[in-house]
Amino acid sequence: MTDWSGLYASRVSRIQSSDVREQARLMGQADIISFGGGIPDPAVFPHADIAEAAHRILIDPAKARVALQYSESGGWRPLREWLVAYMGTLGVACGPDNILITSGSQQGLDLIGRLLLSPGDRVLAEAPTYIGALRAFDACEATYGTVDELADPAGPKAKFGYVMPDFQNPMGTCLTQDERLTLLDHAAARGIPLVEDSAYEKLRYEGEPVPSLLALDVERSGGIDKARVIYTSTFSKVIVPSLRVGWVVGPAEVVHRLMLMKQAADLHTSTFNQMLMLDLASRILEDRIAVVNDLYRRRRDATLGALEAHMPPGVAWTRPQGGMYLWVTLPPAIDGQDFARRALAEERVAVVAGRSFYPANPQLNTIRLAFPQTREDRAGEGIARLAGLIRRMVGN
Amino acid sequence: MTDWSGLYASRVSRIQSSDVREQARLMGQADIISFGGGIPDPAVFPHADIAEAAHRILIDPAKARVALQYSESGGWRPLREWLVAYMGTLGVACGPDNILITSGSQQGLDLIGRLLLSPGDRVLAEAPTYIGALRAFDACEATYGTVDELADPAGPKAKFGYVMPDFQNPMGTCLTQDERLTLLDHAAARGIPLVEDSAYEKLRYEGEPVPSLLALDVERSGGIDKARVIYTSTFSKVIVPSLRVGWVVGPAEVVHRLMLMKQAADLHTSTFNQMLMLDLASRILEDRIAVVNDLYRRRRDATLGALEAHMPPGVAWTRPQGGMYLWVTLPPAIDGQDFARRALAEERVAVVAGRSFYPANPQLNTIRLAFPQTREDRAGEGIARLAGLIRRMVGN
Repeated sequence: MTDWSGLYASRVSRIQSSDVREQARLMGQADIISFGGGIPDPAVFPHADIAEAAHRILIDPAKARVALQYSESGGWRPLREWLVAYMGTLGVACGPDNILITSGSQQGLDLIGRLLLSPGDRVLAEAPTYIGALRAFDACEATYGTVDELADPAGPKAKFGYVMPDFQNPMGTCLTQDERLTLLDHAAARGIPLVEDSAYEKLRYEGEPVPSLLALDVERSGGIDKARVIYTSTFSKVIVPSLRVGWVVGPAEVVHRLMLMKQAADLHTSTFNQMLMLDLASRILEDRIAVVNDLYRRRRDATLGALEAHMPPGVAWTRPQGGMYLWVTLPPAIDGQDFARRALAEERVAVVAGRSFYPANPQLNTIRLAFPQTREDRAGEGIARLAGLIRRMVGN
Repeated sequence: MTDWSGLYASRVSRIQSSDVREQARLMGQADIISFGGGIPDPAVFPHADIAEAAHRILIDPAKARVALQYSESGGWRPLREWLVAYMGTLGVACGPDNILITSGSQQGLDLIGRLLLSPGDRVLAEAPTYIGALRAFDACEATYGTVDELADPAGPKAKFGYVMPDFQNPMGTCLTQDERLTLLDHAAARGIPLVEDSAYEKLRYEGEPVPSLLALDVERSGGIDKARVIYTSTFSKVIVPSLRVGWVVGPAEVVHRLMLMKQAADLHTSTFNQMLMLDLASRILEDRIAVVNDLYRRRRDATLGALEAHMPPGVAWTRPQGGMYLWVTLPPAIDGQDFARRALAEERVAVVAGRSFYPANPQLNTIRLAFPQTREDRAGEGIARLAGLIRRMVGN
């Protein structure tokens, strides 16, 4: 028999499952109240619009030929052109050569990791941060520090900083404009790029949008091709995830290199899906953002209200102005992993332990609550059960 | 300004564009007779069937919810189960855990490279071979030898052999059953795996199918989980390329590792596209194979007939029993790259120079002709022009 483990490249030992996503399967179980996987509520999926868009594309022979054929690795040109205009509305003046279409923003993170990381290279990430980014960088055998290190000119050599400035996964928090400018200052002083993950940027229920790191950088540096920020985004949260259409924006030189890596990785993202996404984005994007934000805001409010009503002293949580998550700090004696396991087994409530979101040195008494899938009339019951478990675990 | 080139990982310098695919753009120019890019004729795309399949999925709310949501990294279970039965018809007994759904077979090659290759590791490939495989392995900083080295127990240490046993890209040739068994013997003697790329397996116009390396290996080794072959395939050539649905088959242990790498790379292949592909494959696969093979056989015949009629002495070519390509050896004095450039500029005929298909030591007087896009009534004219150019270049 083949000794496979002896054949694997060293990167393989670094790759673990991001088990958060496996929790999505729990959602199907009717008796579970889920604050688990960070996945949209399918009730907001515009399936009739998608059916119409698919029909429009496939009944037109000229469109169908394009939709079903191989296409450019950089992405279908009309979608890139639409994104040029869209990025313009977000304060980023750029051209089609500054945009790469990816199979979700996860692929953007993967390609950026492969572009920049050699084994052992240090990534400065928020702590906690998005698990999927850690898994992508792990596959390049990254090591990790925290973004705080950016401020220290004598800090260990680092390859890039990875930040999610808007409604960060898992905490739901945002960086202020001043914090963003300071990050850019520090990155410039250290001479390293920043990777900006804006997956949740449009899920704002209240408050004023803050310009992205890329927009601020373009303004200061005098143009997209002089920027040191590589920006990733996706239609997954505002339209649907499963079409797997995301994009990267950055200097043309960097985007060209990423395109070549994408070509080697999977040739191109489905042309049909890119055409569907352009049809949807150009017709219903603003409408979808409004629908999604209205629903998720109500669920956030229900969850925050229940936390206020039920949680015992010694429990703290974030109060996000958007996104899909909030972050709960449990009493110091409670390990979030132990808590998550018991919450599911004893209370039939799914939450995610905080430890896996840390690139290093996890704070163990933490959990993430995702509220998009939790109906407003169930959130109170779910939080009350979690509060009961906390009380039992601290011995009250 | 950021010095990006100083930041790139060493793998980046290895990645070139596979410019063959860029030639696809030439196809749109009406005055060019194209034997260039290896891409299907869109006339065979079943766009009405795809429109109906999309409608069936999206008007059913229960199906639409699945189709548009995040799903398992390993692939949508019903498609994997269908592929279990399909692989059974090809002599490979396996289960769903032996199958990974990928975004085209290109992604299968990329993930296998990342699983097995550390920088400098040697891959034994056919010479010439598929450019996209070389680009995927280049991204892992592979070095190359030829599959002939497999026969030499004292040959340089190698990580795996990569072969395309059926209607190989670019030559259109097949390995006989004896050649396959010998390859398996040699791989076993050397203790290394084989990566089998079966992208063209079903494009057989005549002659009897030969069992895949994986089928032969499963039979000899006593089961899929004892196999040393990792098999990749795709629906791109027989249904449509742009849905980007392919699959990998191998020992469950290997498939699990590949699944984790896929999760880090792009989470999963579009659920909607997987559902479309299952609908299409289970309804019309045999029909599509017949339609595609009938058309491509006629185009191969027209191309072979024209080569016979027009080519001067000193030109040789393969006579494939299927697939999309044939391989032409020009008189020794003609460099295929020079020839391809002049054929396009002077004769308005697109061909691909042979040199980029070689992992090393290219035979320069070679070109690849792809015939699926060349109408039967145009092939004669195209080949006559190429023959005229050859005569001019050798000075007759």
